Amino acid sequence: MTADQAVLEQQPSRRLRAAVLGAGTWGTTFAAVMADAGCAVTVWGREEKVCRQIADEHRNEAYLPGLTLPDGVTADLDARRAVRDADLVVVAVPSQSARSVLEPLRDAIAPGAVGVSLMKGVELATDRRMSEVIAESLDLAVDRIAVVSGPNLAREIANRQPTATVVASTSDETSRLVAQACASSYFRPYTNRDVIGVELCGAVKNVIALAVGISQGRGLGYNTMATVITRGLVEITRLGLALGADAETFPGLAGMGDLMATCASPDSRNHTLGGHVGRGMSLEEAIVATGGTAEGVKSCRPVLELATTLGVEMPITEAVVRVLYEGLPVEDLAPLLLARPYKSEGL
Amino acid sequence: MTADQAVLEQQPSRRLRAAVLGAGTWGTTFAAVMADAGCAVTVWGREEKVCRQIADEHRNEAYLPGLTLPDGVTADLDARRAVRDADLVVVAVPSQSARSVLEPLRDAIAPGAVGVSLMKGVELATDRRMSEVIAESLDLAVDRIAVVSGPNLAREIANRQPTATVVASTSDETSRLVAQACASSYFRPYTNRDVIGVELCGAVKNVIALAVGISQGRGLGYNTMATVITRGLVEITRLGLALGADAETFPGLAGMGDLMATCASPDSRNHTLGGHVGRGMSLEEAIVATGGTAEGVKSCRPVLELATTLGVEMPITEAVVRVLYEGLPVEDLAPLLLARPYKSEGL
Repeated sequence: MTADQAVLEQQPSRRLRAAVLGAGTWGTTFAAVMADAGCAVTVWGREEKVCRQIADEHRNEAYLPGLTLPDGVTADLDARRAVRDADLVVVAVPSQSARSVLEPLRDAIAPGAVGVSLMKGVELATDRRMSEVIAESLDLAVDRIAVVSGPNLAREIANRQPTATVVASTSDETSRLVAQACASSYFRPYTNRDVIGVELCGAVKNVIALAVGISQGRGLGYNTMATVITRGLVEITRLGLALGADAETFPGLAGMGDLMATCASPDSRNHTLGGHVGRGMSLEEAIVATGGTAEGVKSCRPVLELATTLGVEMPITEAVVRVLYEGLPVEDLAPLLLARPYKSEGL
Repeated sequence: MTADQAVLEQQPSRRLRAAVLGAGTWGTTFAAVMADAGCAVTVWGREEKVCRQIADEHRNEAYLPGLTLPDGVTADLDARRAVRDADLVVVAVPSQSARSVLEPLRDAIAPGAVGVSLMKGVELATDRRMSEVIAESLDLAVDRIAVVSGPNLAREIANRQPTATVVASTSDETSRLVAQACASSYFRPYTNRDVIGVELCGAVKNVIALAVGISQGRGLGYNTMATVITRGLVEITRLGLALGADAETFPGLAGMGDLMATCASPDSRNHTLGGHVGRGMSLEEAIVATGGTAEGVKSCRPVLELATTLGVEMPITEAVVRVLYEGLPVEDLAPLLLARPYKSEGL
C-alpha cells in the first residue's frame, strides 16, 4: 500500500466543519468547494446583506452573481459563533485587516482547530506573511496552519471547472486534513511543506503580472509574455532561495501555475492596470481607469527593497518600480528586461 | 571581471557567416535575427521562387507576408555553395527530411563549422533527436552542435518583438558563438549545456498543447490551462530525468517558456487541432479542419511508449492518446487529468 492510498483510506468518520471568514468572491467560492467535498461550511462576512442572502437563498449576488451555492454552505453574522465548532478556520479577508478580524476570535476557536489562509500578500506594518499573522492572531502553533494557493481564478472554480491547487503546511497531518476538506472531482489539492515558498509566490506574482500587462499594453505578443513570466519566475525563485524556500515550489502550481493563470486572465487587476500603463497612462490615471489600485502596485517596492537587502537581482521587478515610480518611459521597459549580457540560463 | 563580461569583450573581429537551410517561416525569421545581430546570412530553400524573392527583393511573401528582410540576408539555390564558407550551418527543414538534405552536404561544409538545429521533434525511423541527426549526417562532433529553442513564435520575432531563447550545446564555446551570432536588442539568448532536456521539451510540448487545446475546446478556462501546463511540465521533467536531462531546463525558456507561448497563441497547430477535438470532432475531422495534422498527433504515442518502457508516469500524455486513438469520450478527459489520489506536489 502506498502512502497515497493510506491517506484515502483514513477518511474521517464524521463530517468536517469549516468556518470561512470573508464572504467575498474567493471566500464564498472556497466555501462552495468545501461543501462539494462534503464539509458543513459556515461563512461569516462583514456585510449583513451578503450573509443573509447566503444563509436564506444560497446565493451571493454581490460577489458571485448568478450562482447557486451548495446546500452545505450557510452563513452567520456572528463570527465567534461561526468559528466555535469549526475544525477548520479559513481566512479570506483583505490581508491588511486579517489581524483585526482574527484577534477577537482567539478565545472562541475550538481546541485543535486548524487555520487556513486563502490570502495573498504581506502585512505591510510588520512584513509578516499571512500564515504568520494567523498564527499570532489566533495563537495557533505553526503546524496547525495551512496555506492554499494555485491557479485558482475564483469564478472558474465557482463554475466547477477543473483545476488543481497546493495545500502547504509544515505538518503533513495538517495539509492532508485540509486537502481532504476541499478535494472533489473538479478541485485537486496537492500537498507541499514549503509554506514560505508558496506564500512568496502569491505575494510577488502580482508584480510580474504588472510587467506582463505593461508589455501587452505596448502591443507585444505571446513570446514576450512567456519570456517575462519565465524570467520572472527565475527572479522569484532567487528571492525564495535566499529566504529558505524550496526550489521545487516555484515551477509548481502555486508558482508557475498561479502566475500563468493570473497573466492569461483578462480579469486580473494587476494585468489590467499594467495594460493601462503600457498604453501610456500615468500610474494615477491607470489606478482610476482600473477602478482602484492593484496588489502589485503596493508590493513592488517592498519586494525590491527586500531583494536589495539580500543581494538578490530582480531585474523585472526593478523595471516595474522604475516605470511606475521613477518616471522611466514605458517604451524603455522591454529593452530593459532583455538588456543584460548573455549568460547561462539558471539562477 | 565576470565570466559574462569576458564573453562580451571577446567579440570576433571578423563578421560571422551563416547558412540557413530551410526558407520557411522560422528559417527565414532566424536568418533575419542573425543579420540584425551582424552576420552575413545566406538562405537556401527547396522552392526556387522563394529563394529568388529573398535574394532579389529581400522578401519572403509565401512564409512572411508583408515583411522586408534586413540587407544582411541573401539566398542561394545551390545548397553546397551556401554552406561552403559558413561558420554556422543552421538547419530549419522539416524534421523527417533533415537527413536527406544534410548528407549530400557533408563534404561541402567548412572545417570548424558549427551545426545549429532549429528543428523540433524526433526522426521517427531512428528515434534520434535532431542534434544527433545533424551530427551523423554532417559528420560533426557533438560539441560542434547547438540547439536553439524557446518561446519563439516566428511571426512575433520577425516583427522584432522582444523575446529570449536558449542556445544549448555540450560545449560552452559553441553555445557562446551561436549566442553571439543571434543576440540583438529584441532577441536575447541564454546558454545551457543540457541538449537532451532542451530537445525533449521541444518534442513533447506539442502533446501538452493538444491537451490544452482539447480543454479549451470544451470551454474550460485559464485555471485548467495553467494546471494542464504545470502538471504537463512535471511529467516532461520526469521523462527528462529518466533520460539524463538536467531538472533546471524544464522550468526555463525552452521548457515552460516555449510551452506557455505555444499554448497561449491561437496560431499553434496543435492547440488548434486540439480545440476541434474538444468541440467534438473525431481525429480525422479535426485534421481536415486544421488543414493537416499536427506534430503532437504523431508524437504522443511514441512518447507514451518511451515513458512506459522507462517506467515513467505521464497521465496527461496518456489521456491525449486515449482520446485521439482509443475512443475515450472527450468529456471524460478533464476528470481523468485530475482523478488521482491527492499527493505531494513534486516529481
